[in-house]
Amino acid sequence: IAATCALYNLTPTEFSELHTQAVAAKAAAYCPYSHFRVGCVLLTHAGAYIPGANVENASYPVTTCAERVAFGRAITSGHRGFKAVAVATDISPPASPCGMCRQCIREFCEPSVPVVMFDGSGGYSVMRLEELLPMSFGPEALGFPSQA
Amino acid sequence: IAATCALYNLTPTEFSELHTQAVAAKAAAYCPYSHFRVGCVLLTHAGAYIPGANVENASYPVTTCAERVAFGRAITSGHRGFKAVAVATDISPPASPCGMCRQCIREFCEPSVPVVMFDGSGGYSVMRLEELLPMSFGPEALGFPSQA
Amino acid sequence: IAATCALYNLTPTEFSELHTQAVAAKAAAYCPYSHFRVGCVLLTHAGAYIPGANVENASYPVTTCAERVAFGRAITSGHRGFKAVAVATDISPPASPCGMCRQCIREFCEPSVPVVMFDGSGGYSVMRLEELLPMSFGPEALGFPSQA
Amino acid sequence: IAATCALYNLTPTEFSELHTQAVAAKAAAYCPYSHFRVGCVLLTHAGAYIPGANVENASYPVTTCAERVAFGRAITSGHRGFKAVAVATDISPPASPCGMCRQCIREFCEPSVPVVMFDGSGGYSVMRLEELLPMSFGPEALGFPSQA
Ligand SMILES: [Zn+2]
Ligand SMILES: [Zn+2]
Ligand SMILES: [Zn+2]
Ligand SMILES: [Zn+2]
Repeated sequence: IAATCALYNLTPTEFSELHTQAVAAKAAAYCPYSHFRVGCVLLTHAGAYIPGANVENASYPVTTCAERVAFGRAITSGHRGFKAVAVATDISPPASPCGMCRQCIREFCEPSVPVVMFDGSGGYSVMRLEELLPMSFGPEALGFPSQA
Repeated sequence: IAATCALYNLTPTEFSELHTQAVAAKAAAYCPYSHFRVGCVLLTHAGAYIPGANVENASYPVTTCAERVAFGRAITSGHRGFKAVAVATDISPPASPCGMCRQCIREFCEPSVPVVMFDGSGGYSVMRLEELLPMSFGPEALGFPSQA
Repeated sequence: IAATCALYNLTPTEFSELHTQAVAAKAAAYCPYSHFRVGCVLLTHAGAYIPGANVENASYPVTTCAERVAFGRAITSGHRGFKAVAVATDISPPASPCGMCRQCIREFCEPSVPVVMFDGSGGYSVMRLEELLPMSFGPEALGFPSQA
Repeated sequence: IAATCALYNLTPTEFSELHTQAVAAKAAAYCPYSHFRVGCVLLTHAGAYIPGANVENASYPVTTCAERVAFGRAITSGHRGFKAVAVATDISPPASPCGMCRQCIREFCEPSVPVVMFDGSGGYSVMRLEELLPMSFGPEALGFPSQA
């Protein structure tokens, strides 16, 4: 963990808090259809933690994943500048964000932002956004400046 | 407004608060692509107000509308039992929730829940969910109980 | 059926074909997660029938419903001007299009277009788009002309 | 191009056909909101080419990208086993599939499937799915076998 923190520029307290809060967020998932709980927490450069969990719908495509719930809450609460994204699930190896959520992260984060994936038994993996979504599609393709 | 409040079982204070908070929420929209600001606020039977606004994405389908941002936040914060949904936009007549958002409301609200639509010049319309999404698709079609 | 055809300006052959093709389309559904098969067929004023079925995804929000598969295929094949939309499921009473799909129909069809919903035991219901999605959100809200 | 074909196990004719058909598919895009045309074509191991283009909606999240239109059409037409995915846009460097579409490709293709991205001036890039969506989320996370 010390090495992970050094590599991704997180303090041990931040890493611990990401773990605790992502797991806590998971408990709030509404997932009667998949029974697959996902928790997410965003850490801003200003030090705020914003949680989210998956909110499913009987019409499956109307589902909002944990990451997008968290970004929806964060962005509309005025937060910008994200230092880390953490997700927690009950499986091992840990689940990664789906492609749709990687695209959401892409809209608001630097390519180097770390995405910490906690599994159900105390383990974790970390990958940067640019590793999870290489050669990404973004605002620039539409002629807009980056929003991150 | 008095008649509207009586019809939909809202107090004048609640109606006023829905208006104020939906308009305030609108200011937090992230909509560089459509430039179409939408604010939303949910009122629970317990008296809580939960805001949301649209959060767009360079990949348009990854956008989350204001209503779904608000429900994502509300549901994962533990809120259940919604007394009213309000949306605010800058146009007149007022914009209504898109079909995708009506489906989201359907998952968590009674058919009789009022949806208040505020326009950009002080006017409003109100329709119940069962009027906005008649003969709706829901959890029952999949063999699940209603979640509202 | 004769009365239905007269009311919605369909010939008995067209109605029969909508039934047959919607049920046939249902067999092509890819739905390992919901096990809820939906078939759809669109009839154009020019007499073409374009089928679709639901295509799910392990990330539930990436799912495309039957109606949107059919419209995607139709629109990108150059079809415009829809006379009827039909959907078929295995349940009774028949399932209706979800709100997201009603929004898709809204983009490409007149408000009066009939949506025929076939159930799993030979029955059906019909409602016009304007009945399924009253006071709808559409291109006009964004300042665009209707595309229907 | 010869080296590309050798690397990705495509014949020069297949590569040429992917280019021609992806560009042709692009012309069928319905994109009044973004004005960003995307064409897509899928090549199956059986030798079929299935086209798609983006189909937008006034409610942006109801949009279906070109890749998902193509997969919707292909899967519901009974096609399985994809040898290559090609997309074409009008910009240079070429646009890549958004994260949501990478997730769709993930559902139906082997990790090694090549995704050919044609730009607007005769150039192209190729990346395998496993490069575009590393450590991907898929059916296995939900306890389902891979569908590819
Ligand atoms: Zn996701
Ligand atoms: Zn909406
Ligand atoms: Zn649908
Ligand atoms: Zn896409």
